[in-house]
Amino acid sequence: MAKISPFAPQDLPALPAIDGVRMAACAAGIRYPGRTDLLLALFEPATTVAGVFTQSKTASAAVEWCRAHLRHGMARALVVNSGNANAFTGMRGSKAVKETAHAAANVADCLEADVYIASTGVIGEPLDPNKFIGRLAELAEQAEPDAYEMAGRAIMTTDTFPKLATRSCEIGGVTVTLNGIAKGAGMIAPDMATMLAFLFTDAAIEPAALHAVLAPLVEDSFNAITMTSDTVLLFATGTATKRGAPRIANGDDPRLADFRAALFELMRDLAHQIVKDGEGLTKFVKVTVTGAESKAAARTIAKAICNSPLVKTAIAGEDPNWGRIVMAVGKAGEQADRDKLSIRFGDIEVAKDGERSPTYEEAMGATYMKRPEIEIAVDVGVGNAQDTIWTCDLTKEYIAINADYRS
Amino acid sequence: MAKISPFAPQDLPALPAIDGVRMAACAAGIRYPGRTDLLLALFEPATTVAGVFTQSKTASAAVEWCRAHLRHGMARALVVNSGNANAFTGMRGSKAVKETAHAAANVADCLEADVYIASTGVIGEPLDPNKFIGRLAELAEQAEPDAYEMAGRAIMTTDTFPKLATRSCEIGGVTVTLNGIAKGAGMIAPDMATMLAFLFTDAAIEPAALHAVLAPLVEDSFNAITMTSDTVLLFATGTATKRGAPRIANGDDPRLADFRAALFELMRDLAHQIVKDGEGLTKFVKVTVTGAESKAAARTIAKAICNSPLVKTAIAGEDPNWGRIVMAVGKAGEQADRDKLSIRFGDIEVAKDGERSPTYEEAMGATYMKRPEIEIAVDVGVGNAQDTIWTCDLTKEYIAINADYRS
Repeated sequence: MAKISPFAPQDLPALPAIDGVRMAACAAGIRYPGRTDLLLALFEPATTVAGVFTQSKTASAAVEWCRAHLRHGMARALVVNSGNANAFTGMRGSKAVKETAHAAANVADCLEADVYIASTGVIGEPLDPNKFIGRLAELAEQAEPDAYEMAGRAIMTTDTFPKLATRSCEIGGVTVTLNGIAKGAGMIAPDMATMLAFLFTDAAIEPAALHAVLAPLVEDSFNAITMTSDTVLLFATGTATKRGAPRIANGDDPRLADFRAALFELMRDLAHQIVKDGEGLTKFVKVTVTGAESKAAARTIAKAICNSPLVKTAIAGEDPNWGRIVMAVGKAGEQADRDKLSIRFGDIEVAKDGERSPTYEEAMGATYMKRPEIEIAVDVGVGNAQDTIWTCDLTKEYIAINADYRS
Repeated sequence: MAKISPFAPQDLPALPAIDGVRMAACAAGIRYPGRTDLLLALFEPATTVAGVFTQSKTASAAVEWCRAHLRHGMARALVVNSGNANAFTGMRGSKAVKETAHAAANVADCLEADVYIASTGVIGEPLDPNKFIGRLAELAEQAEPDAYEMAGRAIMTTDTFPKLATRSCEIGGVTVTLNGIAKGAGMIAPDMATMLAFLFTDAAIEPAALHAVLAPLVEDSFNAITMTSDTVLLFATGTATKRGAPRIANGDDPRLADFRAALFELMRDLAHQIVKDGEGLTKFVKVTVTGAESKAAARTIAKAICNSPLVKTAIAGEDPNWGRIVMAVGKAGEQADRDKLSIRFGDIEVAKDGERSPTYEEAMGATYMKRPEIEIAVDVGVGNAQDTIWTCDLTKEYIAINADYRS
């Protein structure tokens, strides 16, 4: 078992109940005995749903299922299992998803098309749904409105703490709640399958509008960390209408401004928690690139810095090795003016106009690097676009965890 | 000091003298006292040269110098220093290059434009040429035709053994020799500045033809490993004409067929040696992707596999975790048919038609992974193009080396 992240919160946030959402979880023994690995969430009729999924060419059967059924935008149940990602399991994988949807529809008394499914864990191993679908009925009976912490734990794989967040905001003068749970792992690189996030609100927002609000926010939250999200689902029960909240049909409705801001904050909070549980991490790192030709170019450069093992190991070693940042910028393939490049560590000007800043001394950088949270800012001197992403350092502990994750 | 690579050769190859090439090296104290860090090579008049350089936006002043002077394609001297890359050093960097060229031109009795320069080592630190240009005269006096091993050692940074290779071939019925030295480091990722290779031959080939032969061979040798080359220079003294070799003016000349093949072998040999000295490595890994839409797509997918820390740590842990390969393929962004994907470890069929092969058992993969040299083959099932690249595993030792390289 990996040791708990140094960034794990002292106290988990308490998520309030959301009218129309109930959950339960259990240890179904999907991979490891005694580990909570099955989550069922049930939603009131008329709950809408929006989702954003991985672009991977090897997406799992569960992702294909969700993508296909999101078209109608209504949801009554969510089933998530950990321990087995049901990815790269061929026809058996699709069959497992269908059987799960069938069983969940029975216990939730809804259409199979109203069931959403996600799986996370080991890849390439057939997932036997008979291991857990028999447990769904008891979960439906036990389901409660205040089970977020248990839900957050049920979806964990190599995570060392559950990711929970809550916000509130107003729509048409009525307070609504937003809750979210997420799981990460394999933070170092953008190639771990299953980063999952499930978001819940009592706001009343029609499917198309919900999608219009959710989709653009993923880029600067879950996709602004150095892994890409597999599944982000947002469920809106609409129960706030009982308290006078309006039902919003259009994503451009100005009454969604506060909701949009709160949702973005919630998503970014969860994304940062995922980074802060990166395997073996000791540093939380924010990288901002300015002066780029476009936001996309700024992101490519920022990712090149964040994905450089040489930069990440230097940070792990508390070595202010800014030369490796220069190299990462150079190899990113985007426009950058070597002779205008500047680099800052927090407020410290490290390099300016393409060479070491005259005011910079190594000791300043070395002291800065001892902080648990590091901010690196790079100006590439060719334009006005910028972007910010977050990552963590690359440590021996990461290797230890990943060299024997399956065993 | 890092421990020597397990793939270091028992005996270094003995490189024969090449008529028209003389070298000498010394410890000039550029960064570390007592370390051989300065190489001077001198070439007979009429020596031609071709080069291929990094596409980095932050290329060093030395790279800019070489690129500018390659246009005339003649060379009389090469100066390489290790310890300081003279990269990201602003105007001072260009001045250092010019002063070095001036000094070398004096001792070689040639034009500054006939001097080629390369630097490798720490980035962002000003390089003071006065530390070493005073030593060039003595090196010119000492220069000998059989100093390749010393030359290979002089250009090392974090390398644990010198990379040397030699081949011979025929041009117009006359045997010519090809020698090469190279240095790598920071193998894990494509963002280390200074992978250098210097190649020498007594063949007589005009500059344009020499470039036409050299340039296409870089892609499947030095650029088919998971770092990109900074500088590859090929010097051809033309002295084989004394023994009756023809002078070749056209890159398409059929008399170059054998030379081209030998040069490619020499370059690939050196490239593999660079991988085999990857920091902290325990495995040498060949990744072949077939069934891709194009060679470029096959390379992108192969690189995604090779650059995945999750794949590399699994290999380090001797864990046949092929699910991570599937994920790397999925995230590469190129066309791949999940349900036709197949994976082999050597001769073992691991996955076929998008799921685990019925003949595969985990123990087979686990046994295979214990080998020092691993071959991974992936067919992505969409086309007929393929590509092969080489990499190494990612170990705790890599982190240890890179977390305190500068200190």
